[in-house]
Amino acid sequence: MDSDRSGVLTEVSVQEPKANPRGKAVAGAAPPPPVVISTKATTTSNPKGGWRRGFAIFDLVLRLCGIAVALAATAIMGTTQQTLPFFTQFFQFQAQYNDLPTFTFFVIANAIASGYLVLSLPFSIICIVRPHLRGLRILLIILDTLMIGLAMAAAASAATIADLAQNGNSNANWAPICQQFDDFCQSITEAVQSSFAVAVIFILLVVFSSLALRRN
Amino acid sequence: MDSDRSGVLTEVSVQEPKANPRGKAVAGAAPPPPVVISTKATTTSNPKGGWRRGFAIFDLVLRLCGIAVALAATAIMGTTQQTLPFFTQFFQFQAQYNDLPTFTFFVIANAIASGYLVLSLPFSIICIVRPHLRGLRILLIILDTLMIGLAMAAAASAATIADLAQNGNSNANWAPICQQFDDFCQSITEAVQSSFAVAVIFILLVVFSSLALRRN
Repeated sequence: MDSDRSGVLTEVSVQEPKANPRGKAVAGAAPPPPVVISTKATTTSNPKGGWRRGFAIFDLVLRLCGIAVALAATAIMGTTQQTLPFFTQFFQFQAQYNDLPTFTFFVIANAIASGYLVLSLPFSIICIVRPHLRGLRILLIILDTLMIGLAMAAAASAATIADLAQNGNSNANWAPICQQFDDFCQSITEAVQSSFAVAVIFILLVVFSSLALRRN
Repeated sequence: MDSDRSGVLTEVSVQEPKANPRGKAVAGAAPPPPVVISTKATTTSNPKGGWRRGFAIFDLVLRLCGIAVALAATAIMGTTQQTLPFFTQFFQFQAQYNDLPTFTFFVIANAIASGYLVLSLPFSIICIVRPHLRGLRILLIILDTLMIGLAMAAAASAATIADLAQNGNSNANWAPICQQFDDFCQSITEAVQSSFAVAVIFILLVVFSSLALRRN
């Protein structure tokens, strides 16, 4: 798996021709054996482990940031709630995340992203300790790639609804609701921004993990 | 770039001319044989080139499928239009993609994805011809990763609006519009499904490219 050969040690052995002590050419003598210089490349420790470990440390830091941001997105969206100060006899105007299925999906997706990031921390630490483990890094790339899809889907769908709540759409006759539910809209905008940040963090994780696989 | 050559053994053999210790030219002596430096680089063949090339061919096939599906998504969404058979004195009920900014984004994003996939075909072919080019494969992984984000954002946001058009949302007081615009809704549902397929194709591209980097 690990082929990061660095530190090439070159060994040169020279075999000299046999000297003729009398200093005369001897007729019929066999030609001297050729000088043979053999160059053997032997591998020792790896100088590329350094930047590879640097990538692995950066990977861990990104994951920690991702956990914080994903938890923030989940918490903001999950706890936001606004009740309007006026109500009718039968109805009280109230908004919270589970009024819209998109926001429910958003909370679930960001919770899954947070959980995945927490579970991936030990693997990231192993990649710091043993930066040459290609298989583990590729496993993380594949899982991170799936998480890009999940995080981006959650962020984009919630952004769509947030935009609709803010601006409405006159063609479809959907009225904006943020005039009334201003605090609610403020919270979901923050949550959506956090979720886009999570998706970007996953993209960065895949990009840097790929770059860490660049050389042998 | 290509560093998959393992075990390069360089052998240099030097044949020195016979020394004449007295420093005189010997009449009638044969001219000294020329110095011969032979450099042989033996490269061990890579038995893993086979499956690596297989991955590269699969990559090309996936890209071709992706072009077809992304173009289909763009075309379906871009051309769908429905005009209702009744109209008022001032207004005719008509629906097309640019009535909703989300669908405009959808068309642009899928067009970008199609264009990227077409432009990436030569690189994919180079990866088939030279399956050991790690740098090119990593470049494709990074660009494909960015495209996952774009394709998934387009698909998810359009799916959100399609769901809202189909079912509405009573909490936000957004009425469904698919009772009237049934053909339009049918088309956007197909376009959204195609776009999710494009996102899945990009995810598969990244997964298989990562697996192709597994071994040296």
